[in-house]
Amino acid sequence: MTHTPIRLGMVGGGKGAMIGEVHRIAARLDNRFALVAGALSTTPERNAESAAACGIAPNRTYDDFAEMARAEAARPDGIEAVSICTPNHMHFPAARAFLEAGIHVICDKPMTSTLEDAHALAQIAEASDALFVLTHNYSAYPQLRLAREMVARGDLGPLRLVQVEYAQDWLTEPSDSKQASWRGDPAKAGAGGSIGDIGTHAYQLARFVTGMAPDRLAADLTSFVPGRAVDDNAQIMLRYASGAKGSLWCSQVASGTENALRLRIYGEKAGIEWLHEAPETLWFTPFGAPAQKLRRGAATMAGSRVPPGHPEGYLEGFANIYAEAADAIRAHQAGTPHETLLPGIRDGIEGLEFIDACIRSARADSAWVETGHG
Amino acid sequence: MTHTPIRLGMVGGGKGAMIGEVHRIAARLDNRFALVAGALSTTPERNAESAAACGIAPNRTYDDFAEMARAEAARPDGIEAVSICTPNHMHFPAARAFLEAGIHVICDKPMTSTLEDAHALAQIAEASDALFVLTHNYSAYPQLRLAREMVARGDLGPLRLVQVEYAQDWLTEPSDSKQASWRGDPAKAGAGGSIGDIGTHAYQLARFVTGMAPDRLAADLTSFVPGRAVDDNAQIMLRYASGAKGSLWCSQVASGTENALRLRIYGEKAGIEWLHEAPETLWFTPFGAPAQKLRRGAATMAGSRVPPGHPEGYLEGFANIYAEAADAIRAHQAGTPHETLLPGIRDGIEGLEFIDACIRSARADSAWVETGHG
Amino acid sequence: MTHTPIRLGMVGGGKGAMIGEVHRIAARLDNRFALVAGALSTTPERNAESAAACGIAPNRTYDDFAEMARAEAARPDGIEAVSICTPNHMHFPAARAFLEAGIHVICDKPMTSTLEDAHALAQIAEASDALFVLTHNYSAYPQLRLAREMVARGDLGPLRLVQVEYAQDWLTEPSDSKQASWRGDPAKAGAGGSIGDIGTHAYQLARFVTGMAPDRLAADLTSFVPGRAVDDNAQIMLRYASGAKGSLWCSQVASGTENALRLRIYGEKAGIEWLHEAPETLWFTPFGAPAQKLRRGAATMAGSRVPPGHPEGYLEGFANIYAEAADAIRAHQAGTPHETLLPGIRDGIEGLEFIDACIRSARADSAWVETGHG
Amino acid sequence: MTHTPIRLGMVGGGKGAMIGEVHRIAARLDNRFALVAGALSTTPERNAESAAACGIAPNRTYDDFAEMARAEAARPDGIEAVSICTPNHMHFPAARAFLEAGIHVICDKPMTSTLEDAHALAQIAEASDALFVLTHNYSAYPQLRLAREMVARGDLGPLRLVQVEYAQDWLTEPSDSKQASWRGDPAKAGAGGSIGDIGTHAYQLARFVTGMAPDRLAADLTSFVPGRAVDDNAQIMLRYASGAKGSLWCSQVASGTENALRLRIYGEKAGIEWLHEAPETLWFTPFGAPAQKLRRGAATMAGSRVPPGHPEGYLEGFANIYAEAADAIRAHQAGTPHETLLPGIRDGIEGLEFIDACIRSARADSAWVETGHG
Repeated sequence: MTHTPIRLGMVGGGKGAMIGEVHRIAARLDNRFALVAGALSTTPERNAESAAACGIAPNRTYDDFAEMARAEAARPDGIEAVSICTPNHMHFPAARAFLEAGIHVICDKPMTSTLEDAHALAQIAEASDALFVLTHNYSAYPQLRLAREMVARGDLGPLRLVQVEYAQDWLTEPSDSKQASWRGDPAKAGAGGSIGDIGTHAYQLARFVTGMAPDRLAADLTSFVPGRAVDDNAQIMLRYASGAKGSLWCSQVASGTENALRLRIYGEKAGIEWLHEAPETLWFTPFGAPAQKLRRGAATMAGSRVPPGHPEGYLEGFANIYAEAADAIRAHQAGTPHETLLPGIRDGIEGLEFIDACIRSARADSAWVETGHG
Repeated sequence: MTHTPIRLGMVGGGKGAMIGEVHRIAARLDNRFALVAGALSTTPERNAESAAACGIAPNRTYDDFAEMARAEAARPDGIEAVSICTPNHMHFPAARAFLEAGIHVICDKPMTSTLEDAHALAQIAEASDALFVLTHNYSAYPQLRLAREMVARGDLGPLRLVQVEYAQDWLTEPSDSKQASWRGDPAKAGAGGSIGDIGTHAYQLARFVTGMAPDRLAADLTSFVPGRAVDDNAQIMLRYASGAKGSLWCSQVASGTENALRLRIYGEKAGIEWLHEAPETLWFTPFGAPAQKLRRGAATMAGSRVPPGHPEGYLEGFANIYAEAADAIRAHQAGTPHETLLPGIRDGIEGLEFIDACIRSARADSAWVETGHG
Repeated sequence: MTHTPIRLGMVGGGKGAMIGEVHRIAARLDNRFALVAGALSTTPERNAESAAACGIAPNRTYDDFAEMARAEAARPDGIEAVSICTPNHMHFPAARAFLEAGIHVICDKPMTSTLEDAHALAQIAEASDALFVLTHNYSAYPQLRLAREMVARGDLGPLRLVQVEYAQDWLTEPSDSKQASWRGDPAKAGAGGSIGDIGTHAYQLARFVTGMAPDRLAADLTSFVPGRAVDDNAQIMLRYASGAKGSLWCSQVASGTENALRLRIYGEKAGIEWLHEAPETLWFTPFGAPAQKLRRGAATMAGSRVPPGHPEGYLEGFANIYAEAADAIRAHQAGTPHETLLPGIRDGIEGLEFIDACIRSARADSAWVETGHG
Repeated sequence: MTHTPIRLGMVGGGKGAMIGEVHRIAARLDNRFALVAGALSTTPERNAESAAACGIAPNRTYDDFAEMARAEAARPDGIEAVSICTPNHMHFPAARAFLEAGIHVICDKPMTSTLEDAHALAQIAEASDALFVLTHNYSAYPQLRLAREMVARGDLGPLRLVQVEYAQDWLTEPSDSKQASWRGDPAKAGAGGSIGDIGTHAYQLARFVTGMAPDRLAADLTSFVPGRAVDDNAQIMLRYASGAKGSLWCSQVASGTENALRLRIYGEKAGIEWLHEAPETLWFTPFGAPAQKLRRGAATMAGSRVPPGHPEGYLEGFANIYAEAADAIRAHQAGTPHETLLPGIRDGIEGLEFIDACIRSARADSAWVETGHG
């Protein structure tokens, strides 16, 4: 089979943006995409510089995503897909522009900065023939795919408990970095701080693995750093319609943690535990029997590139999203049916509903509120 | 210095009781106590059998703790201290009898089965010349003593977050065992299930290490196993007067966990983490610097018997309580001033206030309630 | 059953000796022994002081082990067993005196300071009616007992590889401590340094678990610290008659290690791994299937006092030797047949043969030499 | 700066070859290379298929590396560098062809299948203007670069011990896989089995980090699987001219291990430990002070793409070799001086000397032999 990479554009993610480079590495790691167009930075000079560094030709370097959507849609060799890596408040207009131009969208999370925008985008996506993928990358780690399968086939029995947490420390002190400053500005990040930036990842991951979303939550949001306009820590209790309970803790001020996402799920028969620090191990802890260390690649190489013992990590997990997006795009173009576990619009809406519910609960002194889905 | 062990009696803890044997091992491990009297079991035959197995002479084997308190107080060689290891509802009457007889009491937790009894016992203890020690054994692990010191001297900076959890799985399924059945009976255990049995340990430990108690909490209590009259799982959010926040999760249905007590505390400058599975390590995680693995015995041998690398564990930690109780008793007898970190009446009252607050909050659909101390 | 502890004496292990206190705690932990006589220290004053601190009566405090053996053997309530915790060179004469007096001996390792003495002691033990137990305590950890069973019943398949190591760092620098100084004196410790002090433990443990001893070895012994008269590090290769291979590394200069005994065994079907730092876990690693974390107490409570998740450690493992010695002594006294896994004379001889073979190989520039057993 | 990838060719690594895909991912991960030519497989059909799957144009798909070297050298847009991923015996002729054509070579290890070829290749490389890089990828993990710096600046003090091991289990049973079969054929792999395939990695890594090579070794080589023509396990003792000692264990039959490379180094002041299973942590264990967990990216992002807590692994480490090769090639083309830590000819020769010494020692019943460098 002759190899033809998908032509990709990018919005945001210029010089100095961590996540833009992550998207680019993820896109090229499996050689399924070629980055050929971009509107990467907000000033023309930086934009030109960023694009050149990525090997994007000057005539496909755009100062504006709307122009890019129009121009690329008009080219016979125009981009087939676009990656959106801007601050949150730009996700919606950018995604809209490309979806309306019939260009597939791979968008960072949270999907939008408001719940209203999320619903609006859902309608636009519905009306568009193009695909929409949300980069909840953690759900593409092979061991979390395995976890999902195990839950689905009943290895844990009916679920009782969902304990998920995501702890970082990079906002322990006041920060002026570019990454910190837009995240602390509700106009750019949306109303959520840590709940939007990392809480949505934790929430989506628990949702993905368990196959169920809580119908109610009670949240206590805190801004520990003086002057911070959004939460940097959240304690959240979860209730599921099934009777299961859970808790979600996310923090960006947990001194000495790195990027500590941890998921524990307990059912009537067994539990599972997964830690981001060692993402290739899924612990399976059956009641009354020895714990098993389930390793990436040991049972299947799906989502893997190298055998167990050759560590894969964050970039490979992120690349799995891109590889699956490539599969989905090619199938779509060919008109063939295609099943996928890719996160998309529904995950995006639920993420914004989660943020919204947290804020409503926090304003009501942590009262239980409906999540709106559940 | 010639060695003379303290004469010890025991109430409860007869054959088949795990915790009675733990108390006995803890008492003799450092050779500070000699067990010479007991009312160990409820039926005369079992009681005689239990006492003989412990080397207690028949004439100091009592069918009744009240009789034991009277008789031992009257002997010139009567017991100097008593260990109380009964089900919870017997803690109060037994402790009262011995305190009133002037005999020092070493009592298992929770201190009583109701908050009223706790307050009553506090008054009795106040009026008595005898000491009262509550066996919150985890607080006697050397690395948790170190943690307390580190917090107190500001190594972590002002505290922001207290995450404590205690997960077990032994009540995952309905159980008829002796240990399970009284714990599931509110008349014997008190109104709390997991919150009383293990939640009080977690609560006391966080309190001990941080030096602060939450003034409010919001609790979601669950009984997952059908027919269980008390909670077997609790999600609890904590608020401290200082502005710190926390969460406490305790569960006895977390399939595949053993006795997983975990404490994490984060301040403005650093965090610490401790896991019961590896109790000799305290992780110190300063913001912006490498994590340090602080090991038992490395800096000081206080509370240790063997050097680092020779694992000590649960029984040694429990024995630290007994060794310190012996020190306190001998100092008391000698009339010399004596500082101690031993848990006592205050911890007992706070434990019952914690249980009470959890139940009040749960009845109010997880509303924030005052703990009564904080 | 009425409880009657075995009357125990002790030779060596006076004030300041770590291992004497370990033996005493191990002896009393399960309440199977009562320490009633001793010749603990070499000077009369220290001896009296050490004995008083242990609660030994003055009239059973002896300045000399020979006198103690005679006097105790003559008493109707004389000791039934003796613990020998002296420097190595005194093991032989002390063990001889008590064995010849018909008193059971529980002796620290290595059994003697020379191979000749080991053979002589074997004959004495053979001629005596008394039992001889060697405190290779690591072999009494429940998870190593389990490992032995698993090997014996073929869970690993035919064995191929035995990797054992024992690393410490307490002799990294020159030391004048009492414990360091006799260990560095060949007249007191024997010809081996690290190989005698910890190498024999590693060797015995591998032997115990695999059920086989190497018939040849090749050793490279080193004294890294200037002026040290014995080895403080050894690299050793092992060959077994079955065709299996192995290596043993022991070191007392591995900076930053504590007491790091590690055993790994690989067969045609599976491997096992055990680390002293986490002694309650035995890793079972079948070829082609997930690793299993086998935990103390999960399958059986044999050799355990508290359930899994309540850490037991070094002292409990050491106490298992004493508890089993008590069983063996009581069975012997009753004339009932008794199976035991207790280390004894054979382990002692093999330990000295190991030391001897290491030294012969080292003198022959690491040539392969016969171990003499295999 | 405008981005221009280096034009890359590849020899070997066609369909079904794990390591070929690893080289390709590593080459493109940082977007420094574009794969434009190849002689990937041995049969024309497979070759065409492999090339097409990689996006290599038919007119630059060669059936023969010699032809490829000639043709590409003649093109104005010919490849600037070539990756050699064939079985070992083809490394030498292929590397010779490209070096002689002035094309930079990035070659898998071991460098050649015989020591004679290694020396010959050294002369050819000397005579060529092209660069030669050997993909000892483990040495490019950031934490092993850090380890090397720490040793070099004396953080460990003078070194005493080097313990390195590399354990796998994929050859536990007889295997007919393509990868297994050429590795078991001395005509293709060279005289070493596990010592060539993984022992050379372990040897190079210890050499790289310590800055010193042993001058003598004593080896015990074993073929456990019946019919296997080369070793599948090796126990090796090491002696350094400085007086340091070491051991190297490599095995491909250690049931239940994955790709378990472990390096431990102890000096007079401190030790370090690194495990491939958790490659982003370097343990620093100073004598008398707490162990420190040094994490990738915490001090510097050199060799990193994402912050600590976002796991990088094997492919990123391998990509570091490619990124540094790109730097070196661009500097070479520009004629600017360039320092590099890239493994090259010297590592290759030492690797073959290591294999040769192991075999000489094994034939002499594990006698100490000179390594030839040291």
